[in-house]
Amino acid sequence: MKYNFSFTGFTPDAGYAPFPASVPGNIQRDFLDANPGFLSDINFGQEHRKMRALEPYTWIYTTELAFERRPGEKLWFVTEGIDYIWDLALDGEVFYSHEGMFTRVELCLDDILGDKVIPGAKFDIIIHPHPMLHDEPKDRTQAAQCCKPPVSYEWDWHPRVIPSGIWDETYLETRDPGHIDFAEARYTLSEDLKNASVTFDVRCASAAAVTLYDPAGDKIAELPVENGKASVTVENVKLWWCRGLGEQNLYRWEAASSTDSASGTIGFRRTKLIMNKGAWNEPDGFPKSRSYPPAQIELNGVPVFAKGSNYVNQEIFPGIVTPEQYEETIRLATQANMNIFRCWGGSGIQKKAFYDLCDKYGMMLWVEFPLSCNNYYDSDHYLAILEQEGTAIIEKLRCHPSVVLWCGGNELFNNWSLMTDQHLALRLLNKLTYDLTPEIPYIMTSPLAGMKHGGYTFIDRTTGLDQFALFTRSKGTTYTEFGIPGITSAEEIRSMIPEDELFPPKPGGSWEDHHAFKAWGDDAWLCIGTLEKFGDISTLEAMVETSQWLQGVGYKAIFEEARRQKPYCSMAINWCWCEPWKCAVNNSLIGYRNIKKSGWYTVRDSLRDVVGTVRMTKFAWARGEEFFCEPWLLNDTLNPVSAQLSVSVTIEGKEYTLGTCALDAKSNENAQGTKFSFIIPVNIPDKTRMTVICRYTVDGTTDENRYEMLILD
Amino acid sequence: MKYNFSFTGFTPDAGYAPFPASVPGNIQRDFLDANPGFLSDINFGQEHRKMRALEPYTWIYTTELAFERRPGEKLWFVTEGIDYIWDLALDGEVFYSHEGMFTRVELCLDDILGDKVIPGAKFDIIIHPHPMLHDEPKDRTQAAQCCKPPVSYEWDWHPRVIPSGIWDETYLETRDPGHIDFAEARYTLSEDLKNASVTFDVRCASAAAVTLYDPAGDKIAELPVENGKASVTVENVKLWWCRGLGEQNLYRWEAASSTDSASGTIGFRRTKLIMNKGAWNEPDGFPKSRSYPPAQIELNGVPVFAKGSNYVNQEIFPGIVTPEQYEETIRLATQANMNIFRCWGGSGIQKKAFYDLCDKYGMMLWVEFPLSCNNYYDSDHYLAILEQEGTAIIEKLRCHPSVVLWCGGNELFNNWSLMTDQHLALRLLNKLTYDLTPEIPYIMTSPLAGMKHGGYTFIDRTTGLDQFALFTRSKGTTYTEFGIPGITSAEEIRSMIPEDELFPPKPGGSWEDHHAFKAWGDDAWLCIGTLEKFGDISTLEAMVETSQWLQGVGYKAIFEEARRQKPYCSMAINWCWCEPWKCAVNNSLIGYRNIKKSGWYTVRDSLRDVVGTVRMTKFAWARGEEFFCEPWLLNDTLNPVSAQLSVSVTIEGKEYTLGTCALDAKSNENAQGTKFSFIIPVNIPDKTRMTVICRYTVDGTTDENRYEMLILD
Repeated sequence: MKYNFSFTGFTPDAGYAPFPASVPGNIQRDFLDANPGFLSDINFGQEHRKMRALEPYTWIYTTELAFERRPGEKLWFVTEGIDYIWDLALDGEVFYSHEGMFTRVELCLDDILGDKVIPGAKFDIIIHPHPMLHDEPKDRTQAAQCCKPPVSYEWDWHPRVIPSGIWDETYLETRDPGHIDFAEARYTLSEDLKNASVTFDVRCASAAAVTLYDPAGDKIAELPVENGKASVTVENVKLWWCRGLGEQNLYRWEAASSTDSASGTIGFRRTKLIMNKGAWNEPDGFPKSRSYPPAQIELNGVPVFAKGSNYVNQEIFPGIVTPEQYEETIRLATQANMNIFRCWGGSGIQKKAFYDLCDKYGMMLWVEFPLSCNNYYDSDHYLAILEQEGTAIIEKLRCHPSVVLWCGGNELFNNWSLMTDQHLALRLLNKLTYDLTPEIPYIMTSPLAGMKHGGYTFIDRTTGLDQFALFTRSKGTTYTEFGIPGITSAEEIRSMIPEDELFPPKPGGSWEDHHAFKAWGDDAWLCIGTLEKFGDISTLEAMVETSQWLQGVGYKAIFEEARRQKPYCSMAINWCWCEPWKCAVNNSLIGYRNIKKSGWYTVRDSLRDVVGTVRMTKFAWARGEEFFCEPWLLNDTLNPVSAQLSVSVTIEGKEYTLGTCALDAKSNENAQGTKFSFIIPVNIPDKTRMTVICRYTVDGTTDENRYEMLILD
Repeated sequence: MKYNFSFTGFTPDAGYAPFPASVPGNIQRDFLDANPGFLSDINFGQEHRKMRALEPYTWIYTTELAFERRPGEKLWFVTEGIDYIWDLALDGEVFYSHEGMFTRVELCLDDILGDKVIPGAKFDIIIHPHPMLHDEPKDRTQAAQCCKPPVSYEWDWHPRVIPSGIWDETYLETRDPGHIDFAEARYTLSEDLKNASVTFDVRCASAAAVTLYDPAGDKIAELPVENGKASVTVENVKLWWCRGLGEQNLYRWEAASSTDSASGTIGFRRTKLIMNKGAWNEPDGFPKSRSYPPAQIELNGVPVFAKGSNYVNQEIFPGIVTPEQYEETIRLATQANMNIFRCWGGSGIQKKAFYDLCDKYGMMLWVEFPLSCNNYYDSDHYLAILEQEGTAIIEKLRCHPSVVLWCGGNELFNNWSLMTDQHLALRLLNKLTYDLTPEIPYIMTSPLAGMKHGGYTFIDRTTGLDQFALFTRSKGTTYTEFGIPGITSAEEIRSMIPEDELFPPKPGGSWEDHHAFKAWGDDAWLCIGTLEKFGDISTLEAMVETSQWLQGVGYKAIFEEARRQKPYCSMAINWCWCEPWKCAVNNSLIGYRNIKKSGWYTVRDSLRDVVGTVRMTKFAWARGEEFFCEPWLLNDTLNPVSAQLSVSVTIEGKEYTLGTCALDAKSNENAQGTKFSFIIPVNIPDKTRMTVICRYTVDGTTDENRYEMLILD
């Protein structure tokens, strides 16, 4: 029997009244709800800055134990996660202390506390102040020796608002000897992927049995549990596939004792990281270095072109995210024809529902441990916490078929992090993943050699190239971060920027706090110079349109070019998908709480599993210039595809036909056509948009892919 | 009390008489000694080919147990290593089976066999046929799923002769409860390297104590052993240094019980692999990859330029190498001013004496696990053996201060091996080294990104460049293999090549078997075209002189250029140092059984810790051409060095002075001068050698560094 907690929260560090505290939730969010005078709306203006005053506080959840215990039962405290350093106290006496928010903790209160465990006893969860490696600078480096997601210490798209508290399921439970303490199903697949040997690990002091159901819901095995184990071979398994390549087949199992039950799902799949096609041919000549490390996901023997986005936390307060919110976010990604999220290390680990939903929707997950852009140097304390938290994360996620890749963390081998392959943290994570999930590949960080991150603006700062030009000149085994900023909708802007600051955007106030300025250099993410050069910024609405247009067309350029570079290139994963609060401008395709930007539609079009595209080597073309482009049929399906492509250009309502061609793409391969060109008319206004339309007919059905390019002197 | 075995060897697979078998030794070597008619001399002609007939054989060592056991004593069987799959049998009954040659095995025969253990009982060690992954091809790939060194399956400088048998110490021992089962000293150094916390692990059923002596031999601690542990803090430790940077300070300890004793040494040192200077600045721009992995050894806080050679097995039969032979080989390396051996993975692990001697002489060791140029793919069997053997290797070597770096194996991430960072073998070795020696860095293979292997001939095949030209255009964090072939002495050639094949060398016979042809492509290692182009090959003696001259000058070019590229470049390690049999031509600097080639002298000169050098960008110069060179003062010492350099060129006995300069090199840094040049006279014969002399005066002492270059039309 489970008993939910009903806590009151308070802080001994200030004169605020106690307040109702949510489970799960975050104590600072509860505090704000109870104290509307503290700030008006964390998403509005510079209100979020007031949160910094709360940082040094200790918070206490307090309640009286409420439960009924039958004979033979013992009372347990169970939590899936409390953020970040905390104690448990009974009647004011601390009896347990913990560091780390990702470890499931189960404690038998009766065994620890004896006859003090009675209904009505005072029960406290004491949340210590956030870990801070140093006082200054007040930035992510303060989190460089802990396993708390560093993002909340401030990022270029995240305000400095640090949450804590009971962020995941936490309850009391009375347990009898029939309680199932642990149940897990693991398997090995035969080399030919036809059969699976499944082993159930069911820990229960009394007799138990396991029932297994196939994806259709039909019972296929009933197994007694002996010495904590049950096993079965499933023949002709229905494999789990990512979206686009097959069904998301999930087998369900149920373990039952006389008084308890537990259940879970199995998605049979084999995941590998194999060499990118052609990468063994490099390097050539002597003296010779190594070949690039593998970065091609192979799912069930099929090399998958991974197209997706970087998933970041959807809320500043991770405790308040709902399954419905997760589901909408994931659904939007699959609707945009994505098949992978890189779960970025700066954001930490999600609640279980997220992984269940990714299993269901066929979103593959590249899961990073909570390290990002810091030097997590070797110290006994940090390594001990990382071992605990890393183990907990692996054990929590390892049965999700969606989890196809572990990664130590984000951008650790670059000069803003200063970590190397020799750092014990990353060697430890390699060891833990080897021991606990040798069947799932592990990389230490991203990017590795051959993999590429950035750029993050429509015009590359170093070279001055637009993203069409930059990426057609680039060669990467993967593009695992690339970003183009887009302003969110005018309606959203009005809800976050005070009237007197609204337009035009200026640095130093709310626009800057919402990342329009000085987020990544002085001018990003707004990049007003770029907007002005290419479009209309005379009104807020016009500026939003210009920005979202450039975001969409820029993302289209990169996603499609990366796909054309397949099979050498194996991934196109933009930075980033969603955002945890109202960013005025951000590289995200989905604004706060699942608001689509217009780039969502262009990316959706670019990521269609079969799509006709044209390769263009720059964005802006001059009047009278010869415009040229190369038709490509992209095919990520396992079927061969034949298509008729025709390319035309529309300028000021007049359509110019460039040519047509027939292209045959083999299974999971692209097909390249020969160049088309035409001379751009001279007598049209500067800054006119030119629509390039690639119409493609497959099996009698015609679809089109549009690019809104620019004519510019 | 130890009882050495006196075995008779035989094979049940053929009609040979039993023969005396050496311990340690190799059974095939013993067989040859007893059967001189089987082949005349394994180093002569093509005699080694006869060894292939022995490959399928099972071999048996047999004896009668001989020992005396006092009351309270038990009889143990102890081996440091038996090659490779073997059983133990008593009175014809197998009671123990084993795979792997690097694991120390200790068995209490009384506990296993009870009252059958009596003097006179028949005791057999049965050596199974060599592991062979497949029948064809008969090459190193047959060893791709075992931990036997693959080199003996044939390499481009090693005949196919596969040894087996009792290759390391193996004996019977009677043990009483005072026996010290295990004794080891480990330590942690304080961050400032001043103090060491030493922990002794002494396992003994009765009371024991440890005594510690400083490098001068003075007793500094007497410690009781409690619960198997003793510990002490040594203050103001005298650190262990590699040759050139300080003393090889070794503390000695002795553990003693009432009836037994054990001893060992401690060399206090801290080893790290840090980023090469400047490597964090790369890569630049977006989209951005990672920075190169670290490849700079830091010893006791000092970045060391590692200059040395690839150590390979010194004998085909590893069981017959003597400590004296090891010592001479190591002494020759330190005399050549080297400070590191890369112990190449193809050759396996040496006897303990090798590591003791490297500790003593200050040779740092980069130790590779026994993987090389194969795809050691994931299989349960291989991973189990690798875990056993890897653990044994780490535990055997980890207390040697000379061991500064672990490496998974040789050239595994290139397209002739097809392994990647995802192979479980290399992830397992990461785990084992992390668990057992987190204080010693680990790399998965060499080369890694930024590190370079090759070329291996005086003229690069792809570009046609000589090694002066190739390496002055190259940029590497390390050069960890580079080779120039040199013919061994004419006397040695006459001892291995039959009279009727002696001269000129031709493919298809003994020269080819001794690696002159078709070892690395058709023409290497002899490279007769290169020899003919640059020198005289009219007689054997002339050809040897030409070859050794080019080897010496080529190695000089690369070693010095690599040193000039410090601090970005951190290692210059040529391929290779020694050889296990009589190679007619090989990249080695030391012929079989420690015979110096002339290149040994030029390399010794190039590797002087302080040396004046000149940088030249090609080897051959034309008459009338402007010759130019750049003076550099190289300094690997921790002292600043000021030197006066003068450069001259001697042609046909006439010396031309190019210039002089004063150079000041900071501690552990080089100093670069400005270019000198002169016009090469026109009226001299083609193929005249030109001696470039760099004289340098430091503290009033003048030394010189000579390059024998060529004038060629």
